Amino acid sequence: MAQKLIASALHYKQNPHADALLGKGKRIGCIFLNPSLRTRASTQIAALNLGMEPIVMNMDKEGWALEMRSGAVMNTNTVEHIKDAAAVLGTYFDVLAIRAFPSLTQKEEDVTDFVLHQFIRYAGIPVVSLESATRHPLQSLADMITIQEHALKKPKVVLTWAPHIKAIPHAVANSFAEWALGCGHDLTIAHPEGYALDAAFTQGATITHNQAEALEGADFVYVKNWSSFNDYGKILGSYPDWMLREKHLAQAPQAKIMHCLPVRRNVELSDELLDGPRARVQQQAENRIYAAQAVLAEILREIG
Amino acid sequence: MAQKLIASALHYKQNPHADALLGKGKRIGCIFLNPSLRTRASTQIAALNLGMEPIVMNMDKEGWALEMRSGAVMNTNTVEHIKDAAAVLGTYFDVLAIRAFPSLTQKEEDVTDFVLHQFIRYAGIPVVSLESATRHPLQSLADMITIQEHALKKPKVVLTWAPHIKAIPHAVANSFAEWALGCGHDLTIAHPEGYALDAAFTQGATITHNQAEALEGADFVYVKNWSSFNDYGKILGSYPDWMLREKHLAQAPQAKIMHCLPVRRNVELSDELLDGPRARVQQQAENRIYAAQAVLAEILREIG
Amino acid sequence: MAQKLIASALHYKQNPHADALLGKGKRIGCIFLNPSLRTRASTQIAALNLGMEPIVMNMDKEGWALEMRSGAVMNTNTVEHIKDAAAVLGTYFDVLAIRAFPSLTQKEEDVTDFVLHQFIRYAGIPVVSLESATRHPLQSLADMITIQEHALKKPKVVLTWAPHIKAIPHAVANSFAEWALGCGHDLTIAHPEGYALDAAFTQGATITHNQAEALEGADFVYVKNWSSFNDYGKILGSYPDWMLREKHLAQAPQAKIMHCLPVRRNVELSDELLDGPRARVQQQAENRIYAAQAVLAEILREIG
Repeated sequence: MAQKLIASALHYKQNPHADALLGKGKRIGCIFLNPSLRTRASTQIAALNLGMEPIVMNMDKEGWALEMRSGAVMNTNTVEHIKDAAAVLGTYFDVLAIRAFPSLTQKEEDVTDFVLHQFIRYAGIPVVSLESATRHPLQSLADMITIQEHALKKPKVVLTWAPHIKAIPHAVANSFAEWALGCGHDLTIAHPEGYALDAAFTQGATITHNQAEALEGADFVYVKNWSSFNDYGKILGSYPDWMLREKHLAQAPQAKIMHCLPVRRNVELSDELLDGPRARVQQQAENRIYAAQAVLAEILREIG
Repeated sequence: MAQKLIASALHYKQNPHADALLGKGKRIGCIFLNPSLRTRASTQIAALNLGMEPIVMNMDKEGWALEMRSGAVMNTNTVEHIKDAAAVLGTYFDVLAIRAFPSLTQKEEDVTDFVLHQFIRYAGIPVVSLESATRHPLQSLADMITIQEHALKKPKVVLTWAPHIKAIPHAVANSFAEWALGCGHDLTIAHPEGYALDAAFTQGATITHNQAEALEGADFVYVKNWSSFNDYGKILGSYPDWMLREKHLAQAPQAKIMHCLPVRRNVELSDELLDGPRARVQQQAENRIYAAQAVLAEILREIG
Repeated sequence: MAQKLIASALHYKQNPHADALLGKGKRIGCIFLNPSLRTRASTQIAALNLGMEPIVMNMDKEGWALEMRSGAVMNTNTVEHIKDAAAVLGTYFDVLAIRAFPSLTQKEEDVTDFVLHQFIRYAGIPVVSLESATRHPLQSLADMITIQEHALKKPKVVLTWAPHIKAIPHAVANSFAEWALGCGHDLTIAHPEGYALDAAFTQGATITHNQAEALEGADFVYVKNWSSFNDYGKILGSYPDWMLREKHLAQAPQAKIMHCLPVRRNVELSDELLDGPRARVQQQAENRIYAAQAVLAEILREIG
């Protein structure tokens, strides 16, 4: 499936309007429970390229707080239960796209992707994740497209933890590992002690606490912060030395630098790398359009 | 008119794109002074179904506070007078749609629908209410469509007050009473003492403080909270027993449950009813699209 | 160029859909770092009239704080560097339109239009200003169209400072002066002492502290507040007598009143003038559509 979607995305990148009528008369509701820039724009563009009508709505914590707990007595601050909201959205749209970050405090709810699954359960129509608690699949598809565009045979791909000042979700890291392994890439994951990702996503990867060793001979280095998974949602240490710089790549002359953006410059990754010839971050961002377009096209063909 | 709009809405429900060119080259501005989910989505969808271009804008209290008072010296927090804003919107759009909740503190302004009428007065183009201080007509039209779909001859319709934790406007209750009576339904309104609605909307209904009696033999039970009208905008008592549950409906085996959503589950209405076979709340929500479409189509035919 | 754009705008005002296919398949991203009503609506409408797909996004201080400083170590509250965000937007759109008000505290950054130029530098596509720190060109073009519609030969145009309760940017005043002079109008600027505009925009205008004298024989009076430029961003005095009223216009019987809106009624300008026959503020607001349309059409023809 990944290969098919990558091929479809590359086809749309060549010819964005190849299927300009595929989504005619179909509506996608893009629901943001959290902020978004790239995802917000690229999903709308992908939908428009396919002739769909996108309608974007923010349902953030202040404006429209959703109740998630089944059986809740709703006498506090939530104004609508997700099962009611999702069901309504299911009658209004042909496809739903949802962004719902994890709490980073309720591990059980987060790891089961409770919010996303509530939407899937009650909407009754195809639901696309625009980043959930555990995964960011359209980002990872865009990342795989970017790697594919370099046409390397079994590239060495390194996912390295990077410092950050906030507790950051695991979704991008989880998804990247899952897709890189799924695409058959040679994946190494490097992070300080205590920052092991959920093993469900990393089976088959080489995992190390030694960043320098991991980077040797890398073709692609994906830089990303995440908070602790074991000591859930916590920042265990800042490890400023893990911020990737050119000097770390002495043994990886071919390495291209990837990041999903937004990036904290000179905290996660140095200016010199982001502004230099190794950076592929803009290419990744552009590929977000065609990743979304490939997935939406697949869904449109499915629902007919 | 109600019957004509209901028929038109049912026609569009069968064939949403029957008049896909009727609104070509026409623009609707959807202006939200308050939050919205269903109304926001359904109005846009209705407009798109008719080929109109919808543009949605939030003008909420923080971002763009409107001055309402005539002759005001605007040296405090309001940034623009409604007469200027409405006139500009009137030059930008062919149709305006406005959501403007009541203050629940300035009774005189609320009952005269001051804000809505300022928009009507200064916009100089057709203005559709997306819920004003006194009425929520597109909701009520959707409710009437829902009742009509059950094809009962002179159904017994009960509007029952329900508990809530906040002071809630009267618009949905007023409109529902007005439209149910206008459609010739047999309407009973039940509420605790002190919660009488404005008599202007309830002429012809049976009004009682006895919920149990009111529910006997009901075909449709519309559950809704509202604050006191006489002791304006106040919560006089919480009356938890008025929360509708299955046990209240022993004498109403046919009763369908209606609510405009969003609903405070297990405060206004029990989970068992909302999730059970009596609930028609999703049908109502879906009909919001076709209610809006029928009204917009009527306006488009009018303005040519 | 001004004359060509004015002519083009007047042409589109007569026939808004004259070039309904010119922008087919082209996207404009409208990015608001600050609130907007007229600009938000008129830019979208202009784009739609030309067949473009507008996508609107707010990137305000809370939701998506942009880092502006080159080389910043982003370990505080900014979430993305403008160079990354602008570059991404440059890959997503064919044209960008940006609203970015000045800080009114960092004069050096403001006068060099630092934020706008960062977008221009990194987006790599045409960028339209929807009001920057120093200029509001689409407003001024709309103003020039409005003056042109009166068909006066070398009209006497007066830009008069008006009171306000907040520190207001110079962009509208700067742009108006620049465009009025560029169009060859006879421009007089009146303001209290200490409120001199940046001389770069006012070369060729008559400048006075005597409002009464300035208004004599005026054909157009543009009323606008701005904060001090020398004592940067400060309110030096409130000067309530500078609020324009009918009595000020005894020696200007032909004078039409202009203002970019939103206007603080009875602070900047009296109700009697805004609601009287001299007011042209609604005409200006309407012309915002055609100003934007003329500029976008020019850009679309340029980029092919």
